Amino acid sequence: MAAPALKGRIDTALVGFLDAQGPVLAAVAPELAAVGGALSTFLLDGGKRLRPAFAYWGARGGGHPDGAQLVAAAASLELLQACALIHDDVMDGSDTRRGQPSMHRRFAAMHRDRSWQGDPDAFGTAAAVLLGDICLIWGDRLLDTCGLPEPALRRARPVHDLMRTEVMAGQYLDLLEQVEGSDPGAGPVERAMRVARYKSAKYTIERPLHLGAALAGAAPALVSAYSSYGLPLGEAFQLRDDVLGVFGDPAETGKPAGDDLREGKRTVLVAAALDVATPAQAAVVRRLLGDQALDVDGVDDLRSVLVDTGALDRVEALVDERTDAALTALASAPVEEEAREALGDLAAAATRRRV
Amino acid sequence: MAAPALKGRIDTALVGFLDAQGPVLAAVAPELAAVGGALSTFLLDGGKRLRPAFAYWGARGGGHPDGAQLVAAAASLELLQACALIHDDVMDGSDTRRGQPSMHRRFAAMHRDRSWQGDPDAFGTAAAVLLGDICLIWGDRLLDTCGLPEPALRRARPVHDLMRTEVMAGQYLDLLEQVEGSDPGAGPVERAMRVARYKSAKYTIERPLHLGAALAGAAPALVSAYSSYGLPLGEAFQLRDDVLGVFGDPAETGKPAGDDLREGKRTVLVAAALDVATPAQAAVVRRLLGDQALDVDGVDDLRSVLVDTGALDRVEALVDERTDAALTALASAPVEEEAREALGDLAAAATRRRV
Repeated sequence: MAAPALKGRIDTALVGFLDAQGPVLAAVAPELAAVGGALSTFLLDGGKRLRPAFAYWGARGGGHPDGAQLVAAAASLELLQACALIHDDVMDGSDTRRGQPSMHRRFAAMHRDRSWQGDPDAFGTAAAVLLGDICLIWGDRLLDTCGLPEPALRRARPVHDLMRTEVMAGQYLDLLEQVEGSDPGAGPVERAMRVARYKSAKYTIERPLHLGAALAGAAPALVSAYSSYGLPLGEAFQLRDDVLGVFGDPAETGKPAGDDLREGKRTVLVAAALDVATPAQAAVVRRLLGDQALDVDGVDDLRSVLVDTGALDRVEALVDERTDAALTALASAPVEEEAREALGDLAAAATRRRV
Repeated sequence: MAAPALKGRIDTALVGFLDAQGPVLAAVAPELAAVGGALSTFLLDGGKRLRPAFAYWGARGGGHPDGAQLVAAAASLELLQACALIHDDVMDGSDTRRGQPSMHRRFAAMHRDRSWQGDPDAFGTAAAVLLGDICLIWGDRLLDTCGLPEPALRRARPVHDLMRTEVMAGQYLDLLEQVEGSDPGAGPVERAMRVARYKSAKYTIERPLHLGAALAGAAPALVSAYSSYGLPLGEAFQLRDDVLGVFGDPAETGKPAGDDLREGKRTVLVAAALDVATPAQAAVVRRLLGDQALDVDGVDDLRSVLVDTGALDRVEALVDERTDAALTALASAPVEEEAREALGDLAAAATRRRV
């Protein structure tokens, strides 16, 4: 979703970094080539580079000059994201990612192909845990070696660490949301929104902008304006993602149709449906949501409940409302004009209807 | 295994750091208290602080002054180690760690206690993956905020990143060693030694010493002397650990007797036995090694093979030889005298017979 030219520069930074890590792995043992190869494929074979784009424009908006070093610093967020995705797929037991086998499935397949001993799935899971760890470490490494001056990095590190802690904490909240079921306080819609806020709004948009602002040494007023733009936009982005996870085109999402329903994700969309469902509609959700063998008819039944309860319309209205709030904040933000335009384009790309 | 006074100071640094992270987690959501609590228990309820001790004395040996900031920098390695252990237990499916339930078992039990929905073990695994990630991030955070001057940290970061990449790469080699079985090149003893070298010798001793040397701004001669001392000592330490994993007292190891045998670990000890085993002895190993239901008699049968083949004696001789090499290197290392004495004590503590 990053503009093509910026996306190309981010990819170039990633290629350069990954090429430099090859010898580090090879020095341990030749067998590590499989690890380096799998990480390169994963990182370069897809991804919208959304977080690097927000970090890059966050810095530019604060007056940071353009340059390959800034792009490299921003690109480091793709490695953090790779860790989050690889580990998330392990946790969810997801078979695919971006239309390809997920990392643990890839290593399980390698185990089977080579007729190794023991359980292929256990091997795949273990390898994916380690590869995710390596991505987390390498994200740090790329930021540290991006070439920006030390004072800029010193300002950026606390934001980077906070962002990383928050995304893992948000993932844990998401786990809880899946297992707790009944409502121990806040309403289910509000609880799902909180997960969306930490798992996505802060992590995908607000914190990357703050990271950029820190690199630029921006004033507190800009940091605060980035929150006013980034948080509602991030919520809109996550809500759009939830809609795509249920109604999206598999060719675009890279996941089988209705995959989020099979995984039983307790999204705002689902919570909004349960909020007003008739007993019969609630029974459909209880029976089908999280059924890993859910077929096309089951997906259609669940989709009907989400439409008939008005949940889809409610979520679309929320997307519009949050996007408007973000754009209003952006209009008055003390930001460089080129960045204001780019951030407006990113907002449109991240939240537009595609179903 | 760190001397009691140093261990106490390392623990103090960890307590201070963990206390400071509590509000960061609480700001995400009150439910994160369970995460902070579990990490504090895990980090403060055991551990020999071996890696921080080597980092601390590595710095002191290079002329770095004593101080709480240096201790805090060294203590950061316990957080990295916590990540490695938590993820390792997930990968091995280990039930216990330091005599307590492993992290994934702890969260699976929480799921059961609260009668949550879904599979308790899947929840436990997912939570442990995330908690390990948080430890990896926090190790970085503690190093960054230890209070040492920026030039010292700038020297330390590449060593820290290399060390972290190497330990994950070593873990991957270890996985391969467990599944590959037959020998595609090097002899099995040499292959198991290579795993020991990366998983443990570099990670536990050489790299922590190098991290300390970097903090001190030590000359290349000291860095090289630390390798001459640290690598053989690290191999000796891992071999001692392998022996303890089979013959050790559960009260000391914190693991049930013979647990490494149940896990099917392809240690140097096992490889040395297979190297010279009679067909009957090899059959015993093939039948029993990795049998998760292995009882006391089975443990005894495997132990007998390890003794009768001379593998135990061979490994003990290797421990002695490597320890002697380390101490010889230490004697002529260009190191401060107080550190030379402390590193000698650490070598003795890390490799002494306890069976």
